[in-house]
Amino acid sequence: MFSQKLNQAILDKNSRLCVGLDPRLNLIPSSILNKSIQQFGKTNQAAATAIFIFNKQVIDAVLPHAACVKLQSAFYEQFGSEGVKAFWNTAEYAKKLNLPVIADIKRGDIDSTATAYAEAYLGGGDLFGEKQTTPIDSITINPFLGEDSLEPFVKIAHETNKGLFILVKTSNPGSKDLQDLEINGQTVSQRIATYLSKQNTKLDEFGYGLIGAVVGATYPEHAKQLRQQMPTSIFLVPGIGAQGGDPTLLKNFFDKNGLGAVVNSSRGVVFSFEENDKRYLKKIAQAAQDTKELINKNL
Amino acid sequence: MFSQKLNQAILDKNSRLCVGLDPRLNLIPSSILNKSIQQFGKTNQAAATAIFIFNKQVIDAVLPHAACVKLQSAFYEQFGSEGVKAFWNTAEYAKKLNLPVIADIKRGDIDSTATAYAEAYLGGGDLFGEKQTTPIDSITINPFLGEDSLEPFVKIAHETNKGLFILVKTSNPGSKDLQDLEINGQTVSQRIATYLSKQNTKLDEFGYGLIGAVVGATYPEHAKQLRQQMPTSIFLVPGIGAQGGDPTLLKNFFDKNGLGAVVNSSRGVVFSFEENDKRYLKKIAQAAQDTKELINKNL
Repeated sequence: MFSQKLNQAILDKNSRLCVGLDPRLNLIPSSILNKSIQQFGKTNQAAATAIFIFNKQVIDAVLPHAACVKLQSAFYEQFGSEGVKAFWNTAEYAKKLNLPVIADIKRGDIDSTATAYAEAYLGGGDLFGEKQTTPIDSITINPFLGEDSLEPFVKIAHETNKGLFILVKTSNPGSKDLQDLEINGQTVSQRIATYLSKQNTKLDEFGYGLIGAVVGATYPEHAKQLRQQMPTSIFLVPGIGAQGGDPTLLKNFFDKNGLGAVVNSSRGVVFSFEENDKRYLKKIAQAAQDTKELINKNL
Repeated sequence: MFSQKLNQAILDKNSRLCVGLDPRLNLIPSSILNKSIQQFGKTNQAAATAIFIFNKQVIDAVLPHAACVKLQSAFYEQFGSEGVKAFWNTAEYAKKLNLPVIADIKRGDIDSTATAYAEAYLGGGDLFGEKQTTPIDSITINPFLGEDSLEPFVKIAHETNKGLFILVKTSNPGSKDLQDLEINGQTVSQRIATYLSKQNTKLDEFGYGLIGAVVGATYPEHAKQLRQQMPTSIFLVPGIGAQGGDPTLLKNFFDKNGLGAVVNSSRGVVFSFEENDKRYLKKIAQAAQDTKELINKNL
């Protein structure tokens, strides 16, 4: 099951780092870009080709230091169906290297539409009578439409043994607008946490289940309370680096054994090099190692 | 601008019907499916090809009766990048026929990720120095991450003159879980409506702006109040048909001139025929006409 696979990766590599593969076309090394443009012109196909080549290099470079990778879907959808193909190819490449893959899609919908999304990313769907599988291990989900909108995702996660990270408290300042609203002494985030804490009906040998939570690194006090409220949920923690999450408070997100969370870094690792630096892969590997160690120092 | 284009289509066709193109592979006529499978095997490519052929037929059939079409992204994403290609091809086809296209993507994210989503679907992004355009006129957006997550979408909508439909009160029973929570006498839905009502800084000749709202047909009492609170927002109204929204209460969603909303029907129109009915396109056209008239009777 996903949680077991992720927890094992954390222990094997002694890393709680999730590397965010959020390709920014203008930051990809020009050596890669120029070749793609030569081959395909200034098209989505050229963009998607450059992204996939760069992603493979990044994955190879961070492999010893990353517990998992996270693909932000928006940066692939930007380049049409060709971009989406690069998304799936990248997920397949990571899977082959046994690196857990989180698809950051933040989908949320109802009934058969929610089922379609869950099957699209986690698998279990039917294609002309054949059960489908995917290279993705876990997805992020938006709970705004309510509990009945989450149920199809939870059901398919359990059927496929794959994971969900439900948005509970996001890393941006605006997360206060809805998520911090308090009703009868309980915030919206805490309400979602209450729902979520009941969904892990199946636990791995580390005591974690398939239904996890997104909790921003920028809110360590929220994390402390949410960690207690959801003892069986792995936290996906965005918001260190550019967004200003304080690494010295990361211990609030982990359990006493240093498990229970992965901390995402995207730009801080993947675009840690200067333009035209030919040694960019060394820089990326070094940034991944540094971030891994920074997290480990603060458990 | 989008609202002008949609309002004009409503008046030209005397129709407030939005036809939902939510392809269900197992319901597409076997004549189309078998041909696709013969050509491409039991693959995503075969599924996507069948979907695009069927969608074109449906669009031709409903064209006289539909004010717009809505593509539910999940049912395309299910079939990988090939499915996403069918999504874009369908949008292009509708655009060529001057039919406004709503992409039901319910995305929501922060900062540059929100910008990437907005540009992916509404256009205005940069590809190797060239400004991009898309065939999509409007998208649905999820407000769970707060106001700062909506700003990039609002900005790009105004720059491209395209539309947003922000989820305010969704049609499912679970919409009560978060959207109906009341804080200081105001529900979460009403808070979002308050934010939304301030965003329409630019109005068309009918008094409507680019920033619209999703309000479920299953909640006509909510709609009455929200209609007053957001006088410049077009409502996208799902939930008649299978979900049980009462057509006789649709007037709550419209203004006194019979403008200000489009009512979506997906399965009720597109899959209104019996299996193996060779006259399925007549059935689809008839269902579109009947639904259009049912809505018009209840303004």
